[in-house]
Amino acid sequence: MGFVAGVEAIVGAGYVKRDAESLERYGTDALKRGHPADLVVLPADTREIAAVVRLCNEHRVPVVPRGGGTGYTGGSVPVEGGVVLGLDRLNRILRIDEESLFAVTQPNVITGDLQDAVERVGLFYPPDPASLKECAIGGNVAENSGGPRAFKYGVTTHWILGLEAVLPTGEIVRTGGKTVKNVVGYDLTHLIVGSEGTLAIVTEITVRLIPKPPVQATLRATFPSVEAAVGGVTGLIGRRVIPAALELVDGTCLDAVAKYLNVTSLAPPGTAAILLIEVDGLSELVTGEAARVEEACRAAGASEILRATSEAERQELWRVRRELSTSLKVITPLKYNHDIVVPKGRIPELFQLVERLKRDYRLRIPCFGHVGDGNIHVNIMVGPEDLDEQARAHAAERVLFEGTLALEGSISGEHGIGFAKAKYLGLELTPDVIELMKRVKRAFDPNGILNPGKIFPNGDPGALPIAD
Amino acid sequence: MGFVAGVEAIVGAGYVKRDAESLERYGTDALKRGHPADLVVLPADTREIAAVVRLCNEHRVPVVPRGGGTGYTGGSVPVEGGVVLGLDRLNRILRIDEESLFAVTQPNVITGDLQDAVERVGLFYPPDPASLKECAIGGNVAENSGGPRAFKYGVTTHWILGLEAVLPTGEIVRTGGKTVKNVVGYDLTHLIVGSEGTLAIVTEITVRLIPKPPVQATLRATFPSVEAAVGGVTGLIGRRVIPAALELVDGTCLDAVAKYLNVTSLAPPGTAAILLIEVDGLSELVTGEAARVEEACRAAGASEILRATSEAERQELWRVRRELSTSLKVITPLKYNHDIVVPKGRIPELFQLVERLKRDYRLRIPCFGHVGDGNIHVNIMVGPEDLDEQARAHAAERVLFEGTLALEGSISGEHGIGFAKAKYLGLELTPDVIELMKRVKRAFDPNGILNPGKIFPNGDPGALPIAD
Repeated sequence: MGFVAGVEAIVGAGYVKRDAESLERYGTDALKRGHPADLVVLPADTREIAAVVRLCNEHRVPVVPRGGGTGYTGGSVPVEGGVVLGLDRLNRILRIDEESLFAVTQPNVITGDLQDAVERVGLFYPPDPASLKECAIGGNVAENSGGPRAFKYGVTTHWILGLEAVLPTGEIVRTGGKTVKNVVGYDLTHLIVGSEGTLAIVTEITVRLIPKPPVQATLRATFPSVEAAVGGVTGLIGRRVIPAALELVDGTCLDAVAKYLNVTSLAPPGTAAILLIEVDGLSELVTGEAARVEEACRAAGASEILRATSEAERQELWRVRRELSTSLKVITPLKYNHDIVVPKGRIPELFQLVERLKRDYRLRIPCFGHVGDGNIHVNIMVGPEDLDEQARAHAAERVLFEGTLALEGSISGEHGIGFAKAKYLGLELTPDVIELMKRVKRAFDPNGILNPGKIFPNGDPGALPIAD
Repeated sequence: MGFVAGVEAIVGAGYVKRDAESLERYGTDALKRGHPADLVVLPADTREIAAVVRLCNEHRVPVVPRGGGTGYTGGSVPVEGGVVLGLDRLNRILRIDEESLFAVTQPNVITGDLQDAVERVGLFYPPDPASLKECAIGGNVAENSGGPRAFKYGVTTHWILGLEAVLPTGEIVRTGGKTVKNVVGYDLTHLIVGSEGTLAIVTEITVRLIPKPPVQATLRATFPSVEAAVGGVTGLIGRRVIPAALELVDGTCLDAVAKYLNVTSLAPPGTAAILLIEVDGLSELVTGEAARVEEACRAAGASEILRATSEAERQELWRVRRELSTSLKVITPLKYNHDIVVPKGRIPELFQLVERLKRDYRLRIPCFGHVGDGNIHVNIMVGPEDLDEQARAHAAERVLFEGTLALEGSISGEHGIGFAKAKYLGLELTPDVIELMKRVKRAFDPNGILNPGKIFPNGDPGALPIAD
């Protein structure tokens, strides 16, 4: 029996796709630089996944797990061809334990749906990547996704208690468990989280939950400079406030959103940055924290402070942030979106670096992001046909990464390396660390069949058939 | 040049100990079942550690890193002899960054000293193992230590941003960084945390800090049954309260403490369990949360609720908890201390299991612990000379572990496996997972020189010269 017939015998012929449209669709993600799959396989459950993987391992066929396909670094792109294992059918929440505060879910549940389900019983799963209406929780696990609430609540890895996963050699394993405390053997759970689908295929996820904060307050403060906005952040931390969300949007972004929404302005004249701040918790806490936030922003020189008094007003304040990614397209349709991160105290220096890049490389670089975490999305905007601007952008991105590392930061806080940033891995990690990671990879995947060409700088993304 | 002369050339002869007292002292930990070191080496810094480790690797000499020596499972015991690498001289806090909220410390800083240092500048490092006045932060990293505050704040791993470490092959590596968000390559940081000194020797630790909660309230509630106390816990979580500490102490423990302190009773007659509850945060929050705690405990049938109105009263409420370990010695000087953990909702069943063990095996088993995490310290008390009772205790501990796993729990929530629990590893982990962990071990330590005989069930603790 040939390889394809073997796969069909496992999952059923109806769940093996070879039409051009499927191969193309399962061959790209939000990075929009893809490579068509050779075969798309849609298994029903863990056992089918294990059987397909064993077959791939025997035949040395690359296998690439795929959830929502919303990643920004090509993590689910089959850059070396082979099988794309679409987890589409593993889309059920298996259990919500209201007393012990955890949920068990399959990987292809949409993150926002999981949040809605637990919130209906008064519980809360905090991580909130911007794509939460489309991304799969399994993809969040693969990339260790963040989001606005990370400053108070941490990132995905902090909420994962245990996993079921299929190893590249076909074994089904369980790591971690259903408790926060567990020190039995190595912490494979949090090694697999963030490994971008290169160590194991996650087939079941146990997430920790907490009681849903009953009340929230949302504020928007406008500032005459980025430095003043960062001063507001420092001031509110100094006042012992830990906001659930703490977002900064710079003036260039604001102008783009205003243009996109066809309004004159979204903030008072002279606004160079806004902070969006949300505090949550018991009502008595929220009242006090909101007052301290206002105080901190005023002390830092805010020109205007708005506080939502209804859910509609709250949504209106968040609108600027939500429309951002789409709005930037009014500048130009193509952006190189970098999710760099620096220690919070270095953010003013990071913005100085961006100003230098704008000037030296003649680029448009709107910035926004999770300022409490030091995680700023630096969007280098380029004309899709402007090869000169693209070359300048690539030159600038290397300087951006080097500058970020000089500020004690990291070249990726949320999106991972995938294949898009693989060539920059050596900027941040020494050869000894990269070699150690490769040995860990081989401990999981001796034949290198699982999601090859990712993370490590040996792929050749430039040669991909589907160019950006 | 011989091996010892080689070590002396690296660290200086004065920092190499071979006297019987040193070999013995560096050969035991709080488990009190040791094995003398062949050589105690006290390096000055990371470079000396790397040089010593390279030499050990060349000569295939086991090397065992050691911090405070307060572990309960023999993690720092040189069960196969060789070099004990005492980190005593790496005892400085290198940096506290008040703006970016992190600290960088050497591994042998006492955890409590680190907490005091950051609290002096208004910051907070939450993890608080019971031994915090004696244990080293490096040991906390090795064992992923917990403590009472874990319910609200998580365990050590949640507070570690980055590490410098020496690999068993002698390379000096840096993992993670100085930001919460970092998804560049595999998360080696949190793989090394909890690896019990078997993957790498941690030489520098970057910990995350938060603003110190300005106010706290401490309450003690007494209950007529363990079930009622657990009902109080469920009730306060249902009221959206997340206490900083949430400790349960059972009646047997209370009696022991009363006897130790030479008082008639520490609680109203008929008390079968007490809860110690501490809430912290902004003052407006703490007031509201404390009221909800009282409400929840009263609704669950508490017979008495006390609230500390001064620091002296707070210390008095905590006294029972603090005197516990020492007090249990009034029952008998030897205890088998098990740090099992179950999902919070299964705690009543866990206590039913303990009652069965007490009866079926005729044992004294006082229990206390971190009830919010489901992490209960089950202390099986045995006479040091009573071999029959010890045999019954060992039989019971296997039933305890199996029962814990049947309740979806874990056999160790805080203390790790070391060599003491290695033979039970296979109860919780499947052979496939253990094999995977061994491959990860080999990826770090191809010659198996780093802390051999730990975690994996191939050592022979029964044959150790220093018996309990």
